[in-house]
Amino acid sequence: MYRKEIKLLDATVRDGGLINDHKFDHRFVREVYKAVSAAGVDYIELGYKNSDKLFSPEEYGPWKFCSDEDILKVIDGIESNTKISVMGDIGRVNLDDYKPADESPVDMVRTATYVKDIDKAILMSNHFDELGYETTINIMAISRDMGSLELDEALHQIEEESKVQVVYVVDSFGALYQETTDILIKKFREILKTKEIGFHGHNHMQLAFGNTVEAIMKDVNYLDGTVYGIGRAAGNCPLELLLGFLKNPKFDIRPVLDLISKEFIPLRKEIEWGYIIPYAISGMMNEHPRAAMALRKGEDKENYRQFYESLSNAYMN
Amino acid sequence: MYRKEIKLLDATVRDGGLINDHKFDHRFVREVYKAVSAAGVDYIELGYKNSDKLFSPEEYGPWKFCSDEDILKVIDGIESNTKISVMGDIGRVNLDDYKPADESPVDMVRTATYVKDIDKAILMSNHFDELGYETTINIMAISRDMGSLELDEALHQIEEESKVQVVYVVDSFGALYQETTDILIKKFREILKTKEIGFHGHNHMQLAFGNTVEAIMKDVNYLDGTVYGIGRAAGNCPLELLLGFLKNPKFDIRPVLDLISKEFIPLRKEIEWGYIIPYAISGMMNEHPRAAMALRKGEDKENYRQFYESLSNAYMN
Repeated sequence: MYRKEIKLLDATVRDGGLINDHKFDHRFVREVYKAVSAAGVDYIELGYKNSDKLFSPEEYGPWKFCSDEDILKVIDGIESNTKISVMGDIGRVNLDDYKPADESPVDMVRTATYVKDIDKAILMSNHFDELGYETTINIMAISRDMGSLELDEALHQIEEESKVQVVYVVDSFGALYQETTDILIKKFREILKTKEIGFHGHNHMQLAFGNTVEAIMKDVNYLDGTVYGIGRAAGNCPLELLLGFLKNPKFDIRPVLDLISKEFIPLRKEIEWGYIIPYAISGMMNEHPRAAMALRKGEDKENYRQFYESLSNAYMN
Repeated sequence: MYRKEIKLLDATVRDGGLINDHKFDHRFVREVYKAVSAAGVDYIELGYKNSDKLFSPEEYGPWKFCSDEDILKVIDGIESNTKISVMGDIGRVNLDDYKPADESPVDMVRTATYVKDIDKAILMSNHFDELGYETTINIMAISRDMGSLELDEALHQIEEESKVQVVYVVDSFGALYQETTDILIKKFREILKTKEIGFHGHNHMQLAFGNTVEAIMKDVNYLDGTVYGIGRAAGNCPLELLLGFLKNPKFDIRPVLDLISKEFIPLRKEIEWGYIIPYAISGMMNEHPRAAMALRKGEDKENYRQFYESLSNAYMN
């Protein structure tokens, strides 16, 4: 598969940070940046740029806030054509933290939103646009909005009122199959006539890569992946699989393979992500992995039947 | 997804046996049989029925040979509507080991073949048909035969000369994507007008489930899965994900969840399968996982770059 319009975004540090409260140390983030740059990946997302008034820097690591100082520390001296992205959550950012783009190492700001907050997302992303950043809106938990009128309306609003270049389908619950991915992309395409479409998968049912391939086939050009699939709960689409699939000669999988050998095999022994049954069950049930993540921290972490029944019964009550 | 024609086959003991020389003990196989039966799965494949003249029963466990005695021992006293399947490999079976179906606990015999051996496969499967078994032909390593004239010819021969009910697309190398799965199924459908089609995925690139869903959407009715995805190299399509996807009320995922909790979580600590980078690389390269399996047994098992380059260079020499 080769299409020159395709842009890869590595979300390793940002989505992986959801497992460890964004506490990756600077050495580790430098290694990721170095490898992702050498692999020819178009963007790297280093974290959230949320407000340190709303979240405590004692509780969370640097990649919850993405100060320019921290970013400069990890990119300093590394040769790279990879642009830097940060994510802002609705209601969690302080707009004053964002300097004009030409005074910042950041190139792109992605606004993460639920359908219900789309007005705020448009306002916020237009502000980032005015500051000179590339911008996107990432619509989370979208499997809950299949066929909803609210989603249609939100997409129309984005098309008419927002200046973002890209709008992402974000399968936060890892609940999409190829068919539902396809339906959503068609809807996005139909309404968002002047925007690019992006896809961010989650791997609860081992479908993050398969759904991303589906998205590629349906002309989606902005694709998220993470090294070795790291990310919240079951994690994301493995970047290395995308690099193996995409035949653009600008990509080189080998630096990412080295990074997995050296950093991610040891890391996986310390923190948990990937195909784990309670996450698969959450995906099947189209639920936030919150309950499954709580289960994995307790003594009952392998009691899958009880977990399955608790989620099933929640529907009936 | 619900289609009453869909038949699930659990290949846990057969494909899983490729990792441990078919040495699962009788207690373990009973537990699998019990859970798979309670889950309402249509078939269970307990192993290969290969010749004990060609393979040493000292080197291999009982599920390489599937004697009626061993089978009877594991099914005795367990309530079940699940039919029993065994697999025969071209050139590795002694036809005299197969009694008439009505004298055996076995219901189905699947003949595994490469395209080049299709004449032998037809002869063998017709013999099993005459003995009264349900029969299938499973065409292995099919990703190497995309678009080959030999495959076309083999399918025509099967349609005209063979009595099998089902012909399987077997992605032994885990190299298929949805698109190539789709192309193969269309070809099978076009030529095999009187046969059902089956799909057996491998999970090298985390696509076994996604490709199986693709097959389901394209009206494939015979689907293989294994508990927790166990199987050679990266393993197979996880049975539990299929059970979560298929909405036929005859299926119940919960016994399989229990089985994973109790048996497969401990087992996974003893033997290795699943998403492991050298298997992913084999899949990308459309290669047998043999070299990757050898790598995983040595000291260099996490040296992915060297492995990648050795496979890449093999093309150039």
